[in-house]
Amino acid sequence: MAEKPIILVAFGGNALIQSGQEGTAEEQFENLKLTMRQMAKLSQEYKIVITHGNGPQVGNLLLQQESCDEVPKMPLEIIGAMTQGQIGYMIESSLDTAFMEIKESVDQHFVTLITYVVVDENDPGFQNPTKPIGPFYTEEQAKGLPYRLTKTDKGLRRVVASPKPVAIVERREIKKLIEMDFIVICCGGGGIPVIRKNRKFRGVEAVIDKDLASSILAQEIKADIFVIASDVKGAAINWGQSDQKMLRRTPLAEMEKYVKEGQFPAGSMGPKVEAVMQFAKATGNRGVICQLDDIEKAITGEAGTEITD
Amino acid sequence: MAEKPIILVAFGGNALIQSGQEGTAEEQFENLKLTMRQMAKLSQEYKIVITHGNGPQVGNLLLQQESCDEVPKMPLEIIGAMTQGQIGYMIESSLDTAFMEIKESVDQHFVTLITYVVVDENDPGFQNPTKPIGPFYTEEQAKGLPYRLTKTDKGLRRVVASPKPVAIVERREIKKLIEMDFIVICCGGGGIPVIRKNRKFRGVEAVIDKDLASSILAQEIKADIFVIASDVKGAAINWGQSDQKMLRRTPLAEMEKYVKEGQFPAGSMGPKVEAVMQFAKATGNRGVICQLDDIEKAITGEAGTEITD
Repeated sequence: MAEKPIILVAFGGNALIQSGQEGTAEEQFENLKLTMRQMAKLSQEYKIVITHGNGPQVGNLLLQQESCDEVPKMPLEIIGAMTQGQIGYMIESSLDTAFMEIKESVDQHFVTLITYVVVDENDPGFQNPTKPIGPFYTEEQAKGLPYRLTKTDKGLRRVVASPKPVAIVERREIKKLIEMDFIVICCGGGGIPVIRKNRKFRGVEAVIDKDLASSILAQEIKADIFVIASDVKGAAINWGQSDQKMLRRTPLAEMEKYVKEGQFPAGSMGPKVEAVMQFAKATGNRGVICQLDDIEKAITGEAGTEITD
Repeated sequence: MAEKPIILVAFGGNALIQSGQEGTAEEQFENLKLTMRQMAKLSQEYKIVITHGNGPQVGNLLLQQESCDEVPKMPLEIIGAMTQGQIGYMIESSLDTAFMEIKESVDQHFVTLITYVVVDENDPGFQNPTKPIGPFYTEEQAKGLPYRLTKTDKGLRRVVASPKPVAIVERREIKKLIEMDFIVICCGGGGIPVIRKNRKFRGVEAVIDKDLASSILAQEIKADIFVIASDVKGAAINWGQSDQKMLRRTPLAEMEKYVKEGQFPAGSMGPKVEAVMQFAKATGNRGVICQLDDIEKAITGEAGTEITD
């Protein structure tokens, strides 16, 4: 039997907490249902790797720890590690349920790996932190906070660096697990950012873009298809204008032109497009940006923005 | 080359947070140093599996979530999953540092697995919860709390069931990873308790004893040595009396006699002794209870209480 092709699916935060929701455990499990059913079906034909965001979950934990003076506060990389455990468990248990719906006995194995990602201490991101995280503060609340803050519409907010991912530390472990036909859940929230230098190891207070980290991983494991699934149908040009146009199958060269024109905003579609382009360039394989409901269709080429080399 | 023997080491909570400490990230990393240096050295001769407790970390997260009404509260099994991520990351990064101290390049791989453990919904533990967890409450604070509470010296405290572990769900994944010579960190806090029945899967609000869960895992992976390392030198008989005697190498039959005499208290030494006895009985291999500083000595037979079949 030929080896199954590998797909890496990177889930946006809305796979667990949708816009306007508080993020109760029930909501998160409910939201995962449809997506995990698709994953269970796809696993019949594909080897699957799942990565995911963690923004709302990190925000909630930060808010909780700031509300409580009795307990020592944990640095951001440890909060990130916590959300990898939390979301990994929620995805695994939802997958388990999805498999039980379609199969007599669950013979598919899956595993959640705590993942860390090496970043460069000279990354320009550390000089100029831009990534807002966690709760909003009033001027009064913000006094004395040990964070760098930025002004937003809703108040002051902490900003941290978002350095580029350099390497996924657990890449060999992940490859081995894929070879063994396990569904691997990893690289949650873009991975825990660490610096390794002069035989020293340390976690850093930063957030890695999960789409860029997923792209690096997709390249490392030589994924056949790399899917970024969130709440948007795909990338569009002339966004919000009368000639707005959703992109479907688009060659890399054409996409590069749109990027130069500034078609994709930095905070949202920009990193998704960049992640998929890097992947397509490095591997020559298919990369797709699609909506969560459309993952199966995106894989058969019927939905989403596909960037091809 | 002959295969390396396998050791499973189950760390007590004090490997990370010592009695009297608040549990800052710095304290936890500092406490892990000595233990992880021992693990790095032992890995030259042994395949290593690490399990660990999570009591103080769960307590801190529960306290934080109760201090904050803005964020939905997570059920206990999700808090457990968070601590698996947190502690797994702390152990991995401490191991990484320990390896860099002794080796030019770190060629040892290690991996943290989110682990869940099946329990029996008819376990008598669910009828009569006995395991106290989380913060202490005054009578006033306790009003309206949706928990079952118990009276303690320091106030009221939540109690949950502590059902017996039946099977480690990820046992096959863990075995594969050991075969591949990875150091595996798993089964944190005794594992996330789940019930699988009639093709349904659900997490439960309970806490599994980490020594008993580790024993099941040690049996599954056919560990050559099972070590329970905490803040006590070993098991003693006639505890606190003039003829108190620390047990060293002790045959199973003799140990069974002491258990019947009620020599080991239910909350602390009891489960450790039971865990090691179950292991020795099932495998005929060596099981040792020792102090964290003494792991290397315990393995060479120079420290701890060793129970032999």
